[in-house]
Amino acid sequence: LLFSAYFNLRISHTTRKEKMKMEASVSAVEKIIGYTFQNKKLLEQALTHTSYPEAVSYERLEFVGDAVLGLAISNHLFLAYSSVDPGTLSLLRAANVSTEKLARAAVRNGLHRYVRHNTFSIVDAINEFVEAVDCEDDCVVVKYGGSVKAPKILADIVESIAAAVYVDVGFDLKKLWVIIRGVLEPIVTLQDLEQKPQPVTMLYEICQKNGKKVDIEQQKKWCQKHGQCLC
Amino acid sequence: LLFSAYFNLRISHTTRKEKMKMEASVSAVEKIIGYTFQNKKLLEQALTHTSYPEAVSYERLEFVGDAVLGLAISNHLFLAYSSVDPGTLSLLRAANVSTEKLARAAVRNGLHRYVRHNTFSIVDAINEFVEAVDCEDDCVVVKYGGSVKAPKILADIVESIAAAVYVDVGFDLKKLWVIIRGVLEPIVTLQDLEQKPQPVTMLYEICQKNGKKVDIEQQKKWCQKHGQCLC
Repeated sequence: LLFSAYFNLRISHTTRKEKMKMEASVSAVEKIIGYTFQNKKLLEQALTHTSYPEAVSYERLEFVGDAVLGLAISNHLFLAYSSVDPGTLSLLRAANVSTEKLARAAVRNGLHRYVRHNTFSIVDAINEFVEAVDCEDDCVVVKYGGSVKAPKILADIVESIAAAVYVDVGFDLKKLWVIIRGVLEPIVTLQDLEQKPQPVTMLYEICQKNGKKVDIEQQKKWCQKHGQCLC
Repeated sequence: LLFSAYFNLRISHTTRKEKMKMEASVSAVEKIIGYTFQNKKLLEQALTHTSYPEAVSYERLEFVGDAVLGLAISNHLFLAYSSVDPGTLSLLRAANVSTEKLARAAVRNGLHRYVRHNTFSIVDAINEFVEAVDCEDDCVVVKYGGSVKAPKILADIVESIAAAVYVDVGFDLKKLWVIIRGVLEPIVTLQDLEQKPQPVTMLYEICQKNGKKVDIEQQKKWCQKHGQCLC
């Protein structure tokens, strides 16, 4: 009986701690995106990976978020480029909603700190990616992926946060766009798309496609020595 | 001088005739979808294929329409199936915005009559498809394609008409959905998705995938004789 009471206390303590942690995460993310949720449960859901036990995950929100960002970016491009051909518009849309682009949006806004999950490998993958993105700071836009492949979970939470806001503002895309646009900046522009890829970017691209890894240590040393980034 | 005047008259006559034809098409499509455009040019554009000379084609609208229908259907499914997993939601979305589904929406609403183009092969492809869809009337939903592959142009005009309405109502998705939902009916439901494919449907699917053609003549005779459809 005593053991059972102790066990229940432990569980309730853990649960309370987890609850407080999530409340702090919700506040932090609200501050980052500059929007206060009416229904905080939506944002909690948007920050919860399927591996996290006994909680609704972000997967259903991500399903909507994918379409939400697709239309939001389409509207933006359609209005911004009034005479650009649809093939180029499609390339621009794809570049703006790619896993690589959205995962960078997550990291650059610090959103990756607030996703809750229960899988060790995710921590490693996120940390490795964050380190690689830190080294990209001087680049304008990474079009073809960088030295480390972006973990899908980071793109997913941007989509699910977007969907959570969208649902919370009553499925109003204009309101959503005002709120989420800042998170997505820099938007990939026509100028970015027309820029020829740099040799190092191309090397990374080729290596990534063929499952090879570029020696990042060498690059880091070069970055530190020269005070600028190679990528 | 006389020849030149005659030639100019001919051109102006043709242009006027074409203009009147387009005005009639715009009216007819407005009646079908139950919406009167503030900016008729948008609908004209939505009905114009790239092959049609000296006119803006529907391609840019189709770029937006693809994303518009994607989000409209996503919203609908997200709200209609509050506890369905995201994998199934994705299958339902794909089934509702596929070329096969949208081209049928075009034909069943008679929209295929109003697309203007300048390519003979398109006429044949549309006619063949319309004939095949006519024979499907008794079926609830065609999930895997029918006896004749849907011409992409027919799915394209549904997307571009949706986008034209969306732009005309000031990029308001709720207003668009009220207007376009009828055109998209029947919406593919969870029940449709779970239904096992019928043997004849499967035969068509296998034949289509392998570039073989089922003998439609035999089917038509059977349909006429029995007053119902095999597919």
